[in-house]
Amino acid sequence: MPSWPDFDDVRRASERLQALAVRTPLLESQALNQLLRGRVLVKAEPLQRTGSFKFRGAYNCISRLDPAERKRGVVAYSSGNHAQGVAAAAALLEAPATIVMPRDAPRPKIENTRALGAEIVLYDRASESREEIAEALAAERGVAIVRPYDDPQIIAGQGSVGLEIAEQLEELKLVPDAVLVPVGGGGLISGTALGLHGRLPEVPLYGVEPEGFDDTARSLAAGRRLENAAGAESFCDALLAPTPGELTFAINRQHLAPGLAVSDADVAQAMACAFATLKLVIEPGGAVALAALLAGRFEVREKVVVVVASGGNVAPELFAQVLAATCSNPHFPDELVNRCPEMEIML
Amino acid sequence: MPSWPDFDDVRRASERLQALAVRTPLLESQALNQLLRGRVLVKAEPLQRTGSFKFRGAYNCISRLDPAERKRGVVAYSSGNHAQGVAAAAALLEAPATIVMPRDAPRPKIENTRALGAEIVLYDRASESREEIAEALAAERGVAIVRPYDDPQIIAGQGSVGLEIAEQLEELKLVPDAVLVPVGGGGLISGTALGLHGRLPEVPLYGVEPEGFDDTARSLAAGRRLENAAGAESFCDALLAPTPGELTFAINRQHLAPGLAVSDADVAQAMACAFATLKLVIEPGGAVALAALLAGRFEVREKVVVVVASGGNVAPELFAQVLAATCSNPHFPDELVNRCPEMEIML
Repeated sequence: MPSWPDFDDVRRASERLQALAVRTPLLESQALNQLLRGRVLVKAEPLQRTGSFKFRGAYNCISRLDPAERKRGVVAYSSGNHAQGVAAAAALLEAPATIVMPRDAPRPKIENTRALGAEIVLYDRASESREEIAEALAAERGVAIVRPYDDPQIIAGQGSVGLEIAEQLEELKLVPDAVLVPVGGGGLISGTALGLHGRLPEVPLYGVEPEGFDDTARSLAAGRRLENAAGAESFCDALLAPTPGELTFAINRQHLAPGLAVSDADVAQAMACAFATLKLVIEPGGAVALAALLAGRFEVREKVVVVVASGGNVAPELFAQVLAATCSNPHFPDELVNRCPEMEIML
Repeated sequence: MPSWPDFDDVRRASERLQALAVRTPLLESQALNQLLRGRVLVKAEPLQRTGSFKFRGAYNCISRLDPAERKRGVVAYSSGNHAQGVAAAAALLEAPATIVMPRDAPRPKIENTRALGAEIVLYDRASESREEIAEALAAERGVAIVRPYDDPQIIAGQGSVGLEIAEQLEELKLVPDAVLVPVGGGGLISGTALGLHGRLPEVPLYGVEPEGFDDTARSLAAGRRLENAAGAESFCDALLAPTPGELTFAINRQHLAPGLAVSDADVAQAMACAFATLKLVIEPGGAVALAALLAGRFEVREKVVVVVASGGNVAPELFAQVLAATCSNPHFPDELVNRCPEMEIML
């Protein structure tokens, strides 16, 4: 297993990120608070550079390379938020970036990662493995791989989210009753655990996953890393990792409360509610923690709870469908009318 | 004419608002900057309490009443952002608020203003005047009217937007080439002028209006207050005042550069672009300043420009339609694909 990051690594990562990452605000809405009869603070990573928290880890990781390594460049594999985070961080650090992406990825996704300055290597999803291609490229070119989550510098970088939450709560003179964070491979929440618990060791930290992709929740309960069942589906595209990371799970075992899971319908409701009350665009995977509150998976009444909204990169068609569903789907409006008073204003 | 507010009034209003109004961030997107080949900073008032800047002026105005007046309460007329701003500010200051709203206003709008703690007085739009009803109520009950824009304390409160922009630019060590602000009755921009020019007197300040509602632009050119032609239509519901305010225009004449105007199609494009690049929900009237940049009404290339996004209270159906239009309307996608690279990622 790679070396274990600690609070000092998170602190140093936060210092490195200070001038370049957005210190995203903790947003609050009176309507949302009224709805949940508690106080909810939303750490708004959609407002982060490249629209998700992924820039933090990528920048920290690449900035730790020595100048010669950096000049040779980095390789990553992803067609999502990690691709953009790596491309943007590498460009700032003048490291050539190569991103391995599936040949059948939407052309605009490919073009856009290219527009952030990265070289794109396409692979055939049916016959090739992106990990193997990335390993081969890294070996051939002698460059570093920027892994999506199971890496101490990635975890330390994402941990700046947790440290910022602790600092921002201190400025507000608040101690929260809980912090809820979306979980895919576990990079964000393991880093957040180190950053948050370094300052506020007693605050319970909950991971939230899509139903069918609750590998971390089940692994925490079992005490060992389990995989998701084949064939599960969710529109939370950022959270579909098959199993917890080795390093991230080792950290999470020590820090997390039992895991929570939400349905896609819960997530859609949370996205519509964030639109109406926070005026924030959250992508499906980014909205699971807020969804856990709205769907009653976690009781907020008379509590102070922080939720992390981890990203906002969602297709406009999908977002439009989610909003339209909240207005026209017979399963939706009642819940939203009951649960989202500010929604009513605008109907 | 009522007494003229100055920079000191704005400074004092900002102090009063410090603990209660959100110091909204200046958002920035690399994709938006690349698109416009300049640097654009967006003052994000959708993230303000009640979803628009209106809370600022309302709170400042009501907080200036003496304790006995405050206890008697306030009256306002509005079915939009001002209603919510007044209701929320009055509730915080423990002043009973009465809002005069049209009987045919959407029931949820009425219920929601009531949920913010206000008493609602309904009137018949066809046969009654909301101003007369408010004046009568104010006289009968001996309470103050909180006007939507033509009032020195309202203007001073909205001016905290301008002062914050100046302070935030100073923190970023930036002097902008221009600041663009949406204009309805002129309360926001006249206050912003006082706050901004008190610190940065040389920065050109531009008002932006919907086409057909460019009364301030034409009034500035003519040197006297002109009205909009009858029959004009725009979906920028927050910016449909018939003529500039008396006091706001007197201030604006001294501070503003020639006015700009944008079409509803320009505004829809700006809303979709803010969704894609800033992850911010902006209502139509709130998006006109950003629209002026995207539609080429103001050249940003190699400049640093601040635009105010003044509010985010938009119906989900309408927002969904705007996003869907950017994907399916044959007049939209090309422009957006060309102009909004980050949009492409997600299509």
